[in-house]
Amino acid sequence: MPKNSQVNIGLLGLGVVGTAVAQVLLDPSGFLSERTGSPIFLRRILVRDITKPRSLEIPSELLTADPDAILADPEIDVVVEVMGGEHPAFENIEAALRAGKHVVTANKELMAKRGPELLSLAVDSGVQLLFEASVGGGIPIVGPLRKDLQANEIEVVYGIINGTTNYILTRMGQEGADFQDALAEAQAKGYAEPDPTADIEGIDAAFKLAILASLAFHTRVRATDVYREGVSKLKARDFRYAEELGYAIKLLAIAKKGLDGVEARVHPTLIPKDVLLAKVDGVFNAVEVTGDLTGPVLFYGRGAGPQPTSSAVLANVLEIARGLASGDGSPAPPVVDRGFPVKPMSDLVTRYYLRITATDSAGVLAKISHVLGDENISVASVIQKETDPVEGTAELVLTTHPSSEKAMQKALEELERLDVVWEIGNLVRIEQMGD
Amino acid sequence: MPKNSQVNIGLLGLGVVGTAVAQVLLDPSGFLSERTGSPIFLRRILVRDITKPRSLEIPSELLTADPDAILADPEIDVVVEVMGGEHPAFENIEAALRAGKHVVTANKELMAKRGPELLSLAVDSGVQLLFEASVGGGIPIVGPLRKDLQANEIEVVYGIINGTTNYILTRMGQEGADFQDALAEAQAKGYAEPDPTADIEGIDAAFKLAILASLAFHTRVRATDVYREGVSKLKARDFRYAEELGYAIKLLAIAKKGLDGVEARVHPTLIPKDVLLAKVDGVFNAVEVTGDLTGPVLFYGRGAGPQPTSSAVLANVLEIARGLASGDGSPAPPVVDRGFPVKPMSDLVTRYYLRITATDSAGVLAKISHVLGDENISVASVIQKETDPVEGTAELVLTTHPSSEKAMQKALEELERLDVVWEIGNLVRIEQMGD
Repeated sequence: MPKNSQVNIGLLGLGVVGTAVAQVLLDPSGFLSERTGSPIFLRRILVRDITKPRSLEIPSELLTADPDAILADPEIDVVVEVMGGEHPAFENIEAALRAGKHVVTANKELMAKRGPELLSLAVDSGVQLLFEASVGGGIPIVGPLRKDLQANEIEVVYGIINGTTNYILTRMGQEGADFQDALAEAQAKGYAEPDPTADIEGIDAAFKLAILASLAFHTRVRATDVYREGVSKLKARDFRYAEELGYAIKLLAIAKKGLDGVEARVHPTLIPKDVLLAKVDGVFNAVEVTGDLTGPVLFYGRGAGPQPTSSAVLANVLEIARGLASGDGSPAPPVVDRGFPVKPMSDLVTRYYLRITATDSAGVLAKISHVLGDENISVASVIQKETDPVEGTAELVLTTHPSSEKAMQKALEELERLDVVWEIGNLVRIEQMGD
Repeated sequence: MPKNSQVNIGLLGLGVVGTAVAQVLLDPSGFLSERTGSPIFLRRILVRDITKPRSLEIPSELLTADPDAILADPEIDVVVEVMGGEHPAFENIEAALRAGKHVVTANKELMAKRGPELLSLAVDSGVQLLFEASVGGGIPIVGPLRKDLQANEIEVVYGIINGTTNYILTRMGQEGADFQDALAEAQAKGYAEPDPTADIEGIDAAFKLAILASLAFHTRVRATDVYREGVSKLKARDFRYAEELGYAIKLLAIAKKGLDGVEARVHPTLIPKDVLLAKVDGVFNAVEVTGDLTGPVLFYGRGAGPQPTSSAVLANVLEIARGLASGDGSPAPPVVDRGFPVKPMSDLVTRYYLRITATDSAGVLAKISHVLGDENISVASVIQKETDPVEGTAELVLTTHPSSEKAMQKALEELERLDVVWEIGNLVRIEQMGD
């Protein structure tokens, strides 16, 4: 018998996502209750200022500025956290779990930094902690990794999981826009924050990759374990050269499982222009997961925005509500931690795209090749691009065969010492996919 | 408290999918049990002939030729049906549900034809009937529609859900292959059956669309409600002409919800060549679902094959096992049937691509346009393609603005009566997507 026929929700936060969630929960048609088999009620909403005017008409008795009005209310079954940031979200969620409440969160920073301890606490408390909205907005990806792909050993996860940078890179690639112009345009359209650091430096993507990699490999990957490089060094001509070589450039989040540990990195990446991920443009996100049984599976959609994010939050609420309707709310399965080490970036072996400004004279390529050869880096292709007759320089674009990151970093130091090398324009890793 | 710490599986069928499922369930590492939190055992397998040599080494005491050894065994919690076909799968599943066993099936034909009654029986029996593997092989799509996208009103479902025809159409589009040659190649590679009817006539895709549309719209869409046209009338030059016009041709499964009912149809379709679905090539499948909250969400992967299908079957087994480990197995939520009517094809309004062989003389286009105009069909573009000076004919390719299917069918009859029209080469519907 259902121990709880009515499910009461407490909402922490009423920003754009909170408002979108509240709007559906307050929908008078009650379609969510119909689909779940038990009535779902939004009982209380935590806000900073209960007098602030709001876009959505909300009965004033629902609003409270006191967290305990939710966390200490025994009638509340599910706490939905959409405040963002580490504090006080952590403390609130911890208190909710300890009080035996199920928790749904959209908080990528918190889950990337404190996910494992909160998940353990949820198991100990016999409740669920669900976080679909923390990655990929409206794209189901956490649920599929937790459930639908669970019979697989996951080998690789590729993600385009930051819409701001994907918008910027799409503009640079398709229109030849400069980085600063593309960023300004993204800001004007509301796709980038006034302070865009978290997006353009890959911090946001690294949080999300830590969550995905931990789920995919059943091990703990911390946000600080993820190697991270932003997109601000890319030039419009890198996209032109990449295109000529058969590649698109994406800020790719990459996680792989090898015999000796896992790789987790976020950086601009050349990917073959004919693969599906290369067609993921604008603010859209996509995650490609390769399982031993399924092969590659790709999930695509809007990675941000209040409505898509509310879809993910509400899916988790419904999952818990169904569990409550049928019994004890289906407490989370045990957290499996296989304890795989995260490999240091210096262990990486990959292909590289290297753009160098050098003196335009005979023997220069030989000198550069010699330095690379000394580090066992084998050149796959060389093209000489723009020549500047005034400066007497030429721009060389090289790609390499798979080489060690450690060797490449050492070679870069050597190259910078060469008198013929004016500047290392850019070093971008190449992901051959499917290889 | 868990009422059932060990989960016993009975498997009906040991063909290629059954063998792949058994292989994972018999994996000595027990990783599935670890992830679920309760031991999972394969207890009995129904086969036609227990003496037949098999590729997978299976303890002989697991095999039985008697369905009741599974259906009447009170120790068996979950019955997994991978026999295929309507009979005796229906009778076996019905018996299993009545006996209070959870059921997982990969059977698209059965779910398309008898799904609603079996799902009602499952609810009445307090057990689950899960069917992820019935659509899209290894791609999670049934689960996402049942759960992850559940807070959405779904507006449209587009699917490339038959790998055989997608392989054939990809060959025709990319290599200019003829239909018969592409089919022969698909058969040689094992992508098409010796009798390819179910695939090339869209029967398989219609089964899957009936399942997807029923889930998406919370209403009953029967396989027989789905309008269906196969791919055998397509010529290599249709792909060339489509490409010139900016389109790819796919066998698209389309379901839409309107104010007056739902559309459900499977037919060759021109889609803009720059949308993601147009890049789904070869045997891969994809389903794009548009929800009111999420916007478009796309799921892509291998739509068939023993391993991908086993991933979907096992995901359902694990879902049930987790429910059993935590209590009563989380019986299915109520079946919501909104009772939307499925609209007849004659109510469709869409754009068309029309290829006509006509006398190569002045005034012919005027006559054709006149017939179309009389039916209120407005021509969007006309190009004259190949001319045959010996026959004195020319091939005309027209596209129309959105027009009524009823009017178009009437116009086709009129066109065939024109003395200048030698042949209606092909009529293919155009889906503008996102419009």
